[in-house]
Amino acid sequence: MDYVYAPGRNHLFVPGPVNIPEPVIRAMNRNNEDYRSPAIPALTKTLLEDVKKIFKTTTGVPFLIPTTGTGAWESALTNTLSPGDRIVSFLIGQFSLLWIDQQQRLNFDVDVVESEWGRGANLDVLESKLASDTSHTIKAICIVHNETATGVTNNLAKVRQLLDDYQHPALFLVDGVSSICALDFRMDEWGIDVALTGSQKALSLPTGMGIVCASPKALEASKTAKSVRVFFDWKDYLKFYQMGTYWPYTPSIQLLYGLRAALDLIFEEGLENVIIRHKRLGKATRLAVEAWGLKNCTQKEEWVSDTVTAVVVPPDIDSAEIVRIAWKRYNMNLGLGLNKVAGKVFRIGHLGNLNELQLLGCLAGVEMILKDVGYPVKLGSGVAAASAYLQNNIPLIPSRI
Amino acid sequence: MDYVYAPGRNHLFVPGPVNIPEPVIRAMNRNNEDYRSPAIPALTKTLLEDVKKIFKTTTGVPFLIPTTGTGAWESALTNTLSPGDRIVSFLIGQFSLLWIDQQQRLNFDVDVVESEWGRGANLDVLESKLASDTSHTIKAICIVHNETATGVTNNLAKVRQLLDDYQHPALFLVDGVSSICALDFRMDEWGIDVALTGSQKALSLPTGMGIVCASPKALEASKTAKSVRVFFDWKDYLKFYQMGTYWPYTPSIQLLYGLRAALDLIFEEGLENVIIRHKRLGKATRLAVEAWGLKNCTQKEEWVSDTVTAVVVPPDIDSAEIVRIAWKRYNMNLGLGLNKVAGKVFRIGHLGNLNELQLLGCLAGVEMILKDVGYPVKLGSGVAAASAYLQNNIPLIPSRI
Amino acid sequence: MDYVYAPGRNHLFVPGPVNIPEPVIRAMNRNNEDYRSPAIPALTKTLLEDVKKIFKTTTGVPFLIPTTGTGAWESALTNTLSPGDRIVSFLIGQFSLLWIDQQQRLNFDVDVVESEWGRGANLDVLESKLASDTSHTIKAICIVHNETATGVTNNLAKVRQLLDDYQHPALFLVDGVSSICALDFRMDEWGIDVALTGSQKALSLPTGMGIVCASPKALEASKTAKSVRVFFDWKDYLKFYQMGTYWPYTPSIQLLYGLRAALDLIFEEGLENVIIRHKRLGKATRLAVEAWGLKNCTQKEEWVSDTVTAVVVPPDIDSAEIVRIAWKRYNMNLGLGLNKVAGKVFRIGHLGNLNELQLLGCLAGVEMILKDVGYPVKLGSGVAAASAYLQNNIPLIPSRI
Amino acid sequence: MDYVYAPGRNHLFVPGPVNIPEPVIRAMNRNNEDYRSPAIPALTKTLLEDVKKIFKTTTGVPFLIPTTGTGAWESALTNTLSPGDRIVSFLIGQFSLLWIDQQQRLNFDVDVVESEWGRGANLDVLESKLASDTSHTIKAICIVHNETATGVTNNLAKVRQLLDDYQHPALFLVDGVSSICALDFRMDEWGIDVALTGSQKALSLPTGMGIVCASPKALEASKTAKSVRVFFDWKDYLKFYQMGTYWPYTPSIQLLYGLRAALDLIFEEGLENVIIRHKRLGKATRLAVEAWGLKNCTQKEEWVSDTVTAVVVPPDIDSAEIVRIAWKRYNMNLGLGLNKVAGKVFRIGHLGNLNELQLLGCLAGVEMILKDVGYPVKLGSGVAAASAYLQNNIPLIPSRI
Repeated sequence: MDYVYAPGRNHLFVPGPVNIPEPVIRAMNRNNEDYRSPAIPALTKTLLEDVKKIFKTTTGVPFLIPTTGTGAWESALTNTLSPGDRIVSFLIGQFSLLWIDQQQRLNFDVDVVESEWGRGANLDVLESKLASDTSHTIKAICIVHNETATGVTNNLAKVRQLLDDYQHPALFLVDGVSSICALDFRMDEWGIDVALTGSQKALSLPTGMGIVCASPKALEASKTAKSVRVFFDWKDYLKFYQMGTYWPYTPSIQLLYGLRAALDLIFEEGLENVIIRHKRLGKATRLAVEAWGLKNCTQKEEWVSDTVTAVVVPPDIDSAEIVRIAWKRYNMNLGLGLNKVAGKVFRIGHLGNLNELQLLGCLAGVEMILKDVGYPVKLGSGVAAASAYLQNNIPLIPSRI
Repeated sequence: MDYVYAPGRNHLFVPGPVNIPEPVIRAMNRNNEDYRSPAIPALTKTLLEDVKKIFKTTTGVPFLIPTTGTGAWESALTNTLSPGDRIVSFLIGQFSLLWIDQQQRLNFDVDVVESEWGRGANLDVLESKLASDTSHTIKAICIVHNETATGVTNNLAKVRQLLDDYQHPALFLVDGVSSICALDFRMDEWGIDVALTGSQKALSLPTGMGIVCASPKALEASKTAKSVRVFFDWKDYLKFYQMGTYWPYTPSIQLLYGLRAALDLIFEEGLENVIIRHKRLGKATRLAVEAWGLKNCTQKEEWVSDTVTAVVVPPDIDSAEIVRIAWKRYNMNLGLGLNKVAGKVFRIGHLGNLNELQLLGCLAGVEMILKDVGYPVKLGSGVAAASAYLQNNIPLIPSRI
Repeated sequence: MDYVYAPGRNHLFVPGPVNIPEPVIRAMNRNNEDYRSPAIPALTKTLLEDVKKIFKTTTGVPFLIPTTGTGAWESALTNTLSPGDRIVSFLIGQFSLLWIDQQQRLNFDVDVVESEWGRGANLDVLESKLASDTSHTIKAICIVHNETATGVTNNLAKVRQLLDDYQHPALFLVDGVSSICALDFRMDEWGIDVALTGSQKALSLPTGMGIVCASPKALEASKTAKSVRVFFDWKDYLKFYQMGTYWPYTPSIQLLYGLRAALDLIFEEGLENVIIRHKRLGKATRLAVEAWGLKNCTQKEEWVSDTVTAVVVPPDIDSAEIVRIAWKRYNMNLGLGLNKVAGKVFRIGHLGNLNELQLLGCLAGVEMILKDVGYPVKLGSGVAAASAYLQNNIPLIPSRI
Repeated sequence: MDYVYAPGRNHLFVPGPVNIPEPVIRAMNRNNEDYRSPAIPALTKTLLEDVKKIFKTTTGVPFLIPTTGTGAWESALTNTLSPGDRIVSFLIGQFSLLWIDQQQRLNFDVDVVESEWGRGANLDVLESKLASDTSHTIKAICIVHNETATGVTNNLAKVRQLLDDYQHPALFLVDGVSSICALDFRMDEWGIDVALTGSQKALSLPTGMGIVCASPKALEASKTAKSVRVFFDWKDYLKFYQMGTYWPYTPSIQLLYGLRAALDLIFEEGLENVIIRHKRLGKATRLAVEAWGLKNCTQKEEWVSDTVTAVVVPPDIDSAEIVRIAWKRYNMNLGLGLNKVAGKVFRIGHLGNLNELQLLGCLAGVEMILKDVGYPVKLGSGVAAASAYLQNNIPLIPSRI
């Protein structure tokens, strides 16, 4: 049942699905249960309460939907908007592209603000649009916090600032798929109306749970939003929340127990420490890339991502070959370059339940692969650069002091 | 992490989620993998090929959607129909009711044919509707093969017969959630256009995969169907099937390996043997109910269900109390009576990876509970009736002969 | 990898290895760890403290030895006795026979007191031996608390009483393999010097840990005992206990975490409740046997065992055939008759993490098998008798009230 | 239940217990079974047949004993020798020391040949002893193939050569605990009479199975050997082998299925490829040590070990501090220096189911730790040296070509 066995551990460095920690695998290693018995609502109650902490919201209402990130997007849009609504959306890479495609197919009037891939959302354009939209035709701003295809993190605080500056009432919808629980994310402080992530990203669970969190303003909007929805309709969830049974349809028992375990681990480490760990891993990766003499796809320091690094390869090298060799020779998975940057970048995911020595093993592997494809890398150079930084910055493990 | 521990095994007799066999739990006990590496498409290919066997189709195209049965319903409807389309739908219990609610919310023109709960779909009414619909305004017939709330199995062959008799081109959409892989189901032979089930039912997996199978006619219809859909859109799947990468968004790696194991077990037992086993368990359950002097909610033999039995309790007894005691005293889960039959029936699910001694343990438990709530049952009477039948009908286990 | 797959759960009713509860399976689902890191000693410390509770000792010292019950026997004998030492040992069934065989091969002078199989240890003979042994040539009394082959429980309190009556200093060595943590067992109160069990019995773990507990008197004896031993030598353990690293050689990390989980479950249920549950299951089983018109191998009520029932079959039936059919047709495992009672009895194990409906499923199965082999049982009769008792005696599950 | 949680994977680089591959963890994730049903003997039969392959023997008889390496030693000695027998044994490190301690406590007349720790067995002394032992008073040669404490591999072919040269009939007993299934090992070709290993070493299983293989000559010797033994007595195993039930007492069901999976993985990779992989990892580690400017505890190239490298630290550094920091800061486990080399060496285990990027992660970690303790290592230097070698030598993964 393992189609392509290789000795030793798989080195999983795609930006999702990410490594699941052993305690979470254990928690999910179980038979089904009746989700209508008192046990599951009791468990669900703690999950809904605790999951708000990773969004940093106290007023939001979370939904744990049996779906993927794509479904979470659909849930965010259809519950808050009506067909024909104008939304401003930023195209900066493959995942924002896919979300925009969804927005268009759901019949919204999408005002696309495009940036070169490798650059962040053009907030100057947003500002001018907000400035000129005195009649408030813009119903929502849709933005990907961290574009997984290019390793670009957008400045959400700035978006909120602009909305406030122009006293614009547009809803603020954020894809936090590769950011929430890994990058600094503040739903309440930044006035985000819908934020969403997927279980297989920083939460380090299997795929299958789209986690969507709605602000009171978003919930209010959902009462009049005319987009057709049933499976993704928050109304059904809210009805069952009211009844205390929580589930309009059958949840995955395993993912619920898994989420409980995942949250417990995050709180044990401390959410702030989790975020600092991602900063450390991101920084170390970028130092390695620099030492290799390669360029980060992200064009400016302000946009660098602490969850994924897209590395630009020289023009004579096919980045897909790097990904292929990683898998065929080193039992490692790297991310492909997608769409416009296909063949031009490969991606190192460094999010989720991951530590420094895992990353250094990956970086050592990338060095050998670069050599394999003919790039004149100095072996050990990236590891040395990353180590020099890490050795100064890794804290003691609190439970072991 | 076990909120309500009790010694010994949980006796799970709700009609889903059902018991997961150990080999399937094992197969899913794993870390995430990169779904874009060659391993997952190779695995997916075998799954798509093999899953067709449980639908008994060679021409259908299956979709393994990260969703629940509710999402599978939505996938079936939105891919084949346009808003305003007239559909004939049968209301015979809570699950057909919920599907009809979805059909209405998706803006179809639903022609509801209601039966008393406990009776099957009224096919006489269907016949008259088909007979009078010479202009073919009816675009689809929607029917639940097995109504899980009342334990009623509808006659799908008869529906096909009627459609053929009147040479009616309506699409034939079937909810096989609590039937496929347990009851006799023949997608091709019965000319079903969309059939669907959920992973947590007869396949005995965790919740999280909606399995939808579309006939060539349904696929053709999907090209012109105007219902808005993105997450559930077959088009995206078909595009990735074409490319050989199979997944428009991230699947659950664990469920894929779990499905592989589940199908392997089913084929090892033999699909026909699986169906015969369900017949045996269903019959044994009904004999026990009769021995207890209680009535089956299903009003006629032609509709009895081999996957769930809804037992009518005497008017002075609250069936919810039976379910509560099962859980609180016997570590057993029975199904509640829902909606119109709330308090009036309790349900014994007997589907999925289940054997005779497990069922007899359940029946012995029900007897004690009936005594607990004051019903004058003769202890051992149901077990005796069921055993008498089973002892004559259980075959030797092929792998152990 | 499942050599003889059958649908549904395996019904495991041998008196060990027994069913492992899910939380314990989960706790053991893990990678290896370095047993010399601080984590394992910290875990071991809690285990050694807590395991004493199931022996009901405060002064004893436990050893968690990577071995089976046979190894635990050897540990008990070789650490406390010297070759040629006279010991009184009771032969009442296959397991006491095997222990006596070991005692003889270890070169002790074994004074065997034999009883008919189905009867308990002959304590009258013990009394006369003690009475006449004024020079204290008897160095140890070896007794099996519960003879697993015949379902006979010996009266340990009485043994202690006799030793006290005659102020005899013999060591009191007890095989508690199928009793400790299931039957009433009081190491300190009964002045037991070495008590032992195996992980795969009432603790409901996998095989692989022999748990031996030594009284201060036994530890004192170990200082002068001349039996040759290395692997089983307590001295090595005590040296590492002293150092706080606990392990003279590598333990099974998985079994340590498993034992932690198993003890947690036992304490959550309450040790006294665990014992009462075993009484309830034992009584129910005996009532069923009686209802079937069959005889218990145990000849007197005072010896009946609450962990295993050996059922005598009529002379024209081969009990091995019953065991074979259980496995081949019903996916159930019953215990064979061993040695003198081979072909004459089959055994129902009812120990470990087990509940009432599981047992009733087993009893229903036995009824069908009895019919299969031609015994004129009334189907349902045993289940009815057991249910009638159980329905009056099962308490509510504390965590669910 | 995780006493000392740290984010990311644990980097386990002690020379046992080693990392368990996921397919093996999965295979062991199961309930108990009746070991007397036909399934377990059928499984055992394949294991006994296949386990001989990793010893490279066709004439040997293997025993899968529920014990540790220490118990396997005892089994090897007590089954073949009698008290007072003269044996020649080589003291070259902590594990050979412990085996010699056992030999002495078992009352053999041990002729200890000591070498400086870091050197191999002194075969010149062996030669002179054999030469002078014309009356064949030496009954056995006991040698550790790979001394885990110092990373020294002895030359077994040479030992055989000497025995042959002097036509000496002494039994040849080999501890292959950290060699078999990782280093080149040829039981039949080298005329080894008893070879043994433990499950938690190169087989990459949990601890709990001592695997002992006896040559026909050893089996013959066991018929007259007078050492007292019961639990470890081969005779009992042979009796049950004869009967086809295989087990004189209860085995761990989980370890049996685990061993099946472990062997399957080894055969899939190819035993020769497994050995080559260990050579590659060993060589890479030694190159790193050299690049760091540190010395290998092993004093000559002929003795270097491909499963463990003991690294000598400068006199001003306490090697235990390196091990402590590994655990407290980097979530890595390294091996301590033991006894004579305590504080002076730390050990990197590189055996079992392990790959190159895992090792490079470890080496990168060691570099940072060396820096932490004040050793002036050039970060990246060891990784560079190891990578340069590995990049030239890692083959493509056969299943992925």
